[in-house]
Amino acid sequence: MNSECFGLAERLVDRTYVQQALQAKQALTNQIRVLLEHRKWPEEGWDEATIELLLHELALMDSNNFPGNCGVGEREARVASGLVDRRHFRLGHGIGRSGDISAIQPKAAGSSLLNRLANIFALDVIKLAGVRAAAACVLVPMATGMGIVLCLLTLRHQRPQAKYVLWPRIDQKSCFKAIKTAGFEAVVIENRLEGDELRTDLAAVEAKLQELGADNVLCVYSTTSCFAPRVPDRLEELAELCKKYDVPHVINNAYGVQSSKCMHLIQQACRVGRVDAFIQSTDKNFMVPVGGSIIAGPDEKFIAEVSKMYPGRASASPSIDLFITLLSLGRSGYKKLLAERKEMFQYLSAELSRVAEEKGERLLKTPHNPISMAMSLTGSAAGHDGKDVTQLGAMLFTRCVSGTRVVAPGSDKDIAGHTFRNFGAHHDNYPCAYLTAAAAVGMTKTDVDAFIKRLGKVLGKSKSRSDEREGSFAGAAEPEEQGSVESTADTLDCSDER
Amino acid sequence: MNSECFGLAERLVDRTYVQQALQAKQALTNQIRVLLEHRKWPEEGWDEATIELLLHELALMDSNNFPGNCGVGEREARVASGLVDRRHFRLGHGIGRSGDISAIQPKAAGSSLLNRLANIFALDVIKLAGVRAAAACVLVPMATGMGIVLCLLTLRHQRPQAKYVLWPRIDQKSCFKAIKTAGFEAVVIENRLEGDELRTDLAAVEAKLQELGADNVLCVYSTTSCFAPRVPDRLEELAELCKKYDVPHVINNAYGVQSSKCMHLIQQACRVGRVDAFIQSTDKNFMVPVGGSIIAGPDEKFIAEVSKMYPGRASASPSIDLFITLLSLGRSGYKKLLAERKEMFQYLSAELSRVAEEKGERLLKTPHNPISMAMSLTGSAAGHDGKDVTQLGAMLFTRCVSGTRVVAPGSDKDIAGHTFRNFGAHHDNYPCAYLTAAAAVGMTKTDVDAFIKRLGKVLGKSKSRSDEREGSFAGAAEPEEQGSVESTADTLDCSDER
Amino acid sequence: MNSECFGLAERLVDRTYVQQALQAKQALTNQIRVLLEHRKWPEEGWDEATIELLLHELALMDSNNFPGNCGVGEREARVASGLVDRRHFRLGHGIGRSGDISAIQPKAAGSSLLNRLANIFALDVIKLAGVRAAAACVLVPMATGMGIVLCLLTLRHQRPQAKYVLWPRIDQKSCFKAIKTAGFEAVVIENRLEGDELRTDLAAVEAKLQELGADNVLCVYSTTSCFAPRVPDRLEELAELCKKYDVPHVINNAYGVQSSKCMHLIQQACRVGRVDAFIQSTDKNFMVPVGGSIIAGPDEKFIAEVSKMYPGRASASPSIDLFITLLSLGRSGYKKLLAERKEMFQYLSAELSRVAEEKGERLLKTPHNPISMAMSLTGSAAGHDGKDVTQLGAMLFTRCVSGTRVVAPGSDKDIAGHTFRNFGAHHDNYPCAYLTAAAAVGMTKTDVDAFIKRLGKVLGKSKSRSDEREGSFAGAAEPEEQGSVESTADTLDCSDER
Amino acid sequence: MNSECFGLAERLVDRTYVQQALQAKQALTNQIRVLLEHRKWPEEGWDEATIELLLHELALMDSNNFPGNCGVGEREARVASGLVDRRHFRLGHGIGRSGDISAIQPKAAGSSLLNRLANIFALDVIKLAGVRAAAACVLVPMATGMGIVLCLLTLRHQRPQAKYVLWPRIDQKSCFKAIKTAGFEAVVIENRLEGDELRTDLAAVEAKLQELGADNVLCVYSTTSCFAPRVPDRLEELAELCKKYDVPHVINNAYGVQSSKCMHLIQQACRVGRVDAFIQSTDKNFMVPVGGSIIAGPDEKFIAEVSKMYPGRASASPSIDLFITLLSLGRSGYKKLLAERKEMFQYLSAELSRVAEEKGERLLKTPHNPISMAMSLTGSAAGHDGKDVTQLGAMLFTRCVSGTRVVAPGSDKDIAGHTFRNFGAHHDNYPCAYLTAAAAVGMTKTDVDAFIKRLGKVLGKSKSRSDEREGSFAGAAEPEEQGSVESTADTLDCSDER
Repeated sequence: MNSECFGLAERLVDRTYVQQALQAKQALTNQIRVLLEHRKWPEEGWDEATIELLLHELALMDSNNFPGNCGVGEREARVASGLVDRRHFRLGHGIGRSGDISAIQPKAAGSSLLNRLANIFALDVIKLAGVRAAAACVLVPMATGMGIVLCLLTLRHQRPQAKYVLWPRIDQKSCFKAIKTAGFEAVVIENRLEGDELRTDLAAVEAKLQELGADNVLCVYSTTSCFAPRVPDRLEELAELCKKYDVPHVINNAYGVQSSKCMHLIQQACRVGRVDAFIQSTDKNFMVPVGGSIIAGPDEKFIAEVSKMYPGRASASPSIDLFITLLSLGRSGYKKLLAERKEMFQYLSAELSRVAEEKGERLLKTPHNPISMAMSLTGSAAGHDGKDVTQLGAMLFTRCVSGTRVVAPGSDKDIAGHTFRNFGAHHDNYPCAYLTAAAAVGMTKTDVDAFIKRLGKVLGKSKSRSDEREGSFAGAAEPEEQGSVESTADTLDCSDER
Repeated sequence: MNSECFGLAERLVDRTYVQQALQAKQALTNQIRVLLEHRKWPEEGWDEATIELLLHELALMDSNNFPGNCGVGEREARVASGLVDRRHFRLGHGIGRSGDISAIQPKAAGSSLLNRLANIFALDVIKLAGVRAAAACVLVPMATGMGIVLCLLTLRHQRPQAKYVLWPRIDQKSCFKAIKTAGFEAVVIENRLEGDELRTDLAAVEAKLQELGADNVLCVYSTTSCFAPRVPDRLEELAELCKKYDVPHVINNAYGVQSSKCMHLIQQACRVGRVDAFIQSTDKNFMVPVGGSIIAGPDEKFIAEVSKMYPGRASASPSIDLFITLLSLGRSGYKKLLAERKEMFQYLSAELSRVAEEKGERLLKTPHNPISMAMSLTGSAAGHDGKDVTQLGAMLFTRCVSGTRVVAPGSDKDIAGHTFRNFGAHHDNYPCAYLTAAAAVGMTKTDVDAFIKRLGKVLGKSKSRSDEREGSFAGAAEPEEQGSVESTADTLDCSDER
Repeated sequence: MNSECFGLAERLVDRTYVQQALQAKQALTNQIRVLLEHRKWPEEGWDEATIELLLHELALMDSNNFPGNCGVGEREARVASGLVDRRHFRLGHGIGRSGDISAIQPKAAGSSLLNRLANIFALDVIKLAGVRAAAACVLVPMATGMGIVLCLLTLRHQRPQAKYVLWPRIDQKSCFKAIKTAGFEAVVIENRLEGDELRTDLAAVEAKLQELGADNVLCVYSTTSCFAPRVPDRLEELAELCKKYDVPHVINNAYGVQSSKCMHLIQQACRVGRVDAFIQSTDKNFMVPVGGSIIAGPDEKFIAEVSKMYPGRASASPSIDLFITLLSLGRSGYKKLLAERKEMFQYLSAELSRVAEEKGERLLKTPHNPISMAMSLTGSAAGHDGKDVTQLGAMLFTRCVSGTRVVAPGSDKDIAGHTFRNFGAHHDNYPCAYLTAAAAVGMTKTDVDAFIKRLGKVLGKSKSRSDEREGSFAGAAEPEEQGSVESTADTLDCSDER
Repeated sequence: MNSECFGLAERLVDRTYVQQALQAKQALTNQIRVLLEHRKWPEEGWDEATIELLLHELALMDSNNFPGNCGVGEREARVASGLVDRRHFRLGHGIGRSGDISAIQPKAAGSSLLNRLANIFALDVIKLAGVRAAAACVLVPMATGMGIVLCLLTLRHQRPQAKYVLWPRIDQKSCFKAIKTAGFEAVVIENRLEGDELRTDLAAVEAKLQELGADNVLCVYSTTSCFAPRVPDRLEELAELCKKYDVPHVINNAYGVQSSKCMHLIQQACRVGRVDAFIQSTDKNFMVPVGGSIIAGPDEKFIAEVSKMYPGRASASPSIDLFITLLSLGRSGYKKLLAERKEMFQYLSAELSRVAEEKGERLLKTPHNPISMAMSLTGSAAGHDGKDVTQLGAMLFTRCVSGTRVVAPGSDKDIAGHTFRNFGAHHDNYPCAYLTAAAAVGMTKTDVDAFIKRLGKVLGKSKSRSDEREGSFAGAAEPEEQGSVESTADTLDCSDER
């Protein structure tokens, strides 16, 4: 409704009321105007109704929603199911064009505008979270692993002869697989055990660079967010090495945006050394469904190349999700989430430490890991062998605790042709078995309390039942998560009532 | 509500009515049971309410929706925005696992089940549409171009030394770019002009295979669906060549599922020769939003390898969309859509032919192209030079005709390092300018009528205004679609009322 | 988004595309403008997305959705549940004001505007359907029965001494109860049996008017739509009587809008005699959920009085539903529905006649009833006594046939102090038992076919099992519908597959 | 999905995960089971997803959603618009039957069940809020005013000769109109001025009872919630009088459920004297859209009669809204809302008192009014005459303050034939002009702060601009709310930024 419509409405409803409504509408339109004019992620979150209205307006800008449009192409964003159409807010054209995933679509000005804004917000959030050095980013509808593949494929064009990717070991399968998928050979750099922590072996990296010849190395591929007792890589020093040897540097920052420490590491690395791209998951950092990642970097040109590397259109879903979420939170809402996470990290540490001590265990000292922590599982809690330890995961699973990992020595694993000793431990020979837990964004005190309560029960139980069979847990063999429980004798029990 | 709940309901509502409701519920549950038992795409479509109920039930199977679940991992499918959560039916975990995009997720039995069913439906639809030889498929949350990249990357592991991809020319940028993105060298095989049609030059393909050495060729990469006057490649013969030289064969079947001819070509190719994979877009064939593709093939093992190549989780959105759409259509609904498309193709041909003759032009004879057609733009309609011809696209664009392409000689284009003469024409030297139109699935008689009416007007106008400036159309230079109109003097006019 | 917003969007998206989008938006805004300017029910239906946008715009006009509004009253349309808020499109203020249910609300210009338009559409549809004499109407959030109560209460103020309501018998409980609820005494005028039809006994009405004294009669309260073999009242003659004796005339037109015959009767009555108000259900005529009725009449003044009689605000739900539905159908869509209903009536008649003859029964001749029809249930189908006949209803109920009524002699019923002989038959002594069926708006051929098939089976079965107990059906005792089945031996069986 | 479906799912997804999902589903089903078994408003609120699932399950129990149902009646809950159908969760049959608005519908077991539960919750909430004496209630889809009409109409059947309704004056139009609409004569009992408060004149009530003869009095019709400086009626004493004279007693408790004081008054009245029914609005007490009220009372029989008085079916919307809202809040959520309201009342009192003193005014002392309060508008704030005072309302309105009322002497009003002196003031001659504000359920600190800030500005302004014309405010003449502003020179300004 424009002002003419409001004027006509006065024939049906008293002028005063219509005028008031018009002014309210103008306030809202102004909110949209300010967004488009300043092109910045707003400080205050928008309410749901306003966001829906904006989505509706954007959809009207796409040709499939034009009144009177007739489509004689092969791709006209016709949607067969009303259910599907509505859930995408009638935005059917996806994002990007054959030339560039960031390109504007002629048929879809609204989708294009949304995608632009989502990318602008994404860069804003990266900067807000601590990497002010970020010059550009591209939001892609692929999770982190595939986002990394895209970066590696882009680098290939710069370094056609390079075959190797130097990779400080991090026992998450998809990280490693990304290298293979992109067609490169992974050179695994084992971590150094420093106290309880597993840290980057810088000397080994440099030695490998020299041994292989920097020209033959596609990039160094480092990691921030990871499960304790591994800690984020020594990014600053790695970046300096990359600069020194003129080797690209790609950082897997999967869930690191939520941690000011991880972001600070990247910021420093950009400042003092070389960083080509750092990649972060949208679901893990921004509480949206799985499916998107943000590829950011200090050099606009490289990000533009990545963006042009993607052949053809792509799903707009992750863009829509991030757009809605960041608009709904606003800067202040996201900052609040980050602050709450930090608090929860402290609370979880304290509580886990407490329960550990009660059971004769201890919280491993991993001060460099700002998100994940680990509790030892030695004699008392663990029973006589690793086998028993792994039951803990299954027992927690049946009690609706999701996300813990129990890591015990002894499980070698072959991934894409490479054999890892004690896969899951990030190290061939970590001194003890342990259980990890993480304080990720969105975690609540209720989560922590329920976890601690259930863990306490299970640890007690585990000890006393250490010779009983309670289901064999493949967690150690498949440490990605506690998941692949083969069978569970216990019934599910998510109640903390008893 | 289980039968106990129904029993209790009888204390509030008369037994007879509750019993009737229970029996109706059982009929519905039975519908779900049959689906799970037979694991087949149903013949008859489901109504929206039933689909929503099933989605709701599936969501309840994911851990983020468990009552009492506590999450202490880094990825717990927490969703910050209710708007986002609802639009994904509270399915937040995405699909796949680090090892395999088709793998079952421990935390998300419901999402996993949905994805399995979506893949089953996808294979059913491929077979129904004509490729009975398809043994497996994987639905990936990437559009066709990136799906092809994934196939090429998978082939690299089989043929680490191969550098070349043999590619019968098809002037769609993303098709060509896929080769470059995957890190290979494209060997362009120019098409042969046969009558009005542009067809595969089989001799040239074989010559190249011999020249380069089959071992150095990663694959032959052919195309079915394409803009007239190019027609689908001679798949049968190409497949025979691939078999003979033991070279993989990847087929871009972007929007070919909707055409029984394209599907028949693939079926024959599988039967007589070698096909490793054929890739189709979900949006173009099944009327869902852009973002997914189906990678199918006659060999289960290769498809499994492709599926394992994807590193990490991925968006469930394309799976959800396809699941809903195919369930909502049922086999019978989809067959109806295909039949209507065929009819519309005939109707569009007849009408376009008629208007062409009226304007002194003609419909090009491209009997092998079952979806797209082209009308010549010579003297009368085109004015004195190609420049004018391209204005047609802009004029149609301002009249809300989307999807036509005007192709005129003279525009060379450099894509990813390769220069194409007369890009858009699929040929260095096509004899005339032309305008294309396609009868894609979902097109209605209203679309055709509006198009023909507006085209008629524009052709009349175009002729009479051939020296006037009406906006320079970059369509010929950017023939992906008619889109990149730099400026338009005309105002938008989608009404056919005058 | 206003034009300034579109201008700003050009900094993010190419001008040409934004301009095209702007023009599309203007086309849409124009659609709204035309609606507000002409204030007429549109000829062509609007699509769902456009309707949703308009609802969104209207919601923004209500103070509860003003950005920055602060409410310090006792009624501020705060909505606790997001689910509830969304389902009402954030329109929480209801309709009307203390003075008048049609009044404009200061706090809710949008809700008020919607309600005005809904009332305008309602009057348009009444006229379109045949009562061009209608001068005004008010859409109230009460079903027909309560709508009639409101009319009677309004008449009381005109005729404070009048005690009696003259009511040609129609055996629907709520019609009769309305009189009692309003505090009047019903004077039942028995129907005359003419052939198979039950028709108004005009002489009896006039005799009663004279006997009681016209001044003591609040109104004549007649009926159009009813179950066969009763037929619509002789409205024209009744209206003439009312005019002659200066007695108000209220017509229960519950589901008569869908029948041009019923509407023609009202039109004629308005033209030649006296009609104060005629009341129609929104759910039965316009396929919306139960809850609203339209009170219309040829005299604006009386309708305004009815509208002012309602004390306080009221639910906007029925207005929203009718607004959406009529906007979505458009005049042409509703005319199509009416035409289809007429066709279905013919088809149902033919089919029911056919099955009746096969079973030795016959379709009663009730040419004056344009919606409902009845089939005799005599010897063969009915078994030896009425008891058996009534089982038919239960048997159809268990076969998912809803809406039939089986009427058999013998059931007296006391309603609000009045005893009706053979309640359900509209007559003390109708010659035979029968089963009714109606062709109401929205009925499909599938409905008719399924009904006829199941009826055929049940009739066959009923005959052969006439001495078996199959559940006692209280339908004859409670003939409002076939519903109050006490128990059913049969299991539910809605499948026609055998 | 039943357990068989889960079993079948194990063929597609690992057994362990399916089992876990099944157990989660069982927990949910158990939640529903407990609800149906205990038939009580739950202590803890349900989440939105669970409520939606239950609504979905209930909809499946209605015949219009049966697979294979065929409808041959005149009312089959067919819904033309998908938008409408979805917003009602596919519940189209409404509530009630011709005999009783609380009756179970044969065609709609689900709607009936929902309505039963909504009524159960309604009684629970009435008791929780303080009237433990409530024995029954009926939730009707009519706002308070019409709910009162229904009670009066019901009483008529008990006391056919009674003509008068004794009504302690409360200047809300719809309260008074309800008497007229029901066809009775209102006997207005003027209030007594006690300090600043306006209180019931018990002696006058008793005198009228004696004067008119108790048998001629239909009922005493008292009020709890009202605008200060009027306070809730002396219910206990009125109830004693009603008992003594054997006269029915109907209480308008429009927004009193949110106040423990109002509820305590009713509880005491029930205990010591006679109360037939007390009526409360659903929107004002439970934060749902306007449209429903709850008629409750200590005598089940009378409530049943009211329920049977409603002729025919009715809208289910208010039942659905209340059902969702109370289920979503749970007892604990509602108690929290009530506690917050009480706090806001204190806060608003303190703040309004503060601003009043700053401006040389005072908060009137009305300790018996637990919701509304009033601030004097005398010399300084008011200017020289009442006219100016009323501008305050308009000025607040343009600043997006909704819900205040400015009451100034001098406006007589004729309502339904009765002339009220100084209508709005509840008294012929209240000593001063004043402005009211209320702390209603759902009010936030932000509301109070914004109101106080804007009021402060307006009061300052008002003083200084007392001779300027700023729009004539009819608020005093139409004191229902501040609304009927004829014109406003100020522009809308809801921002508190300056």
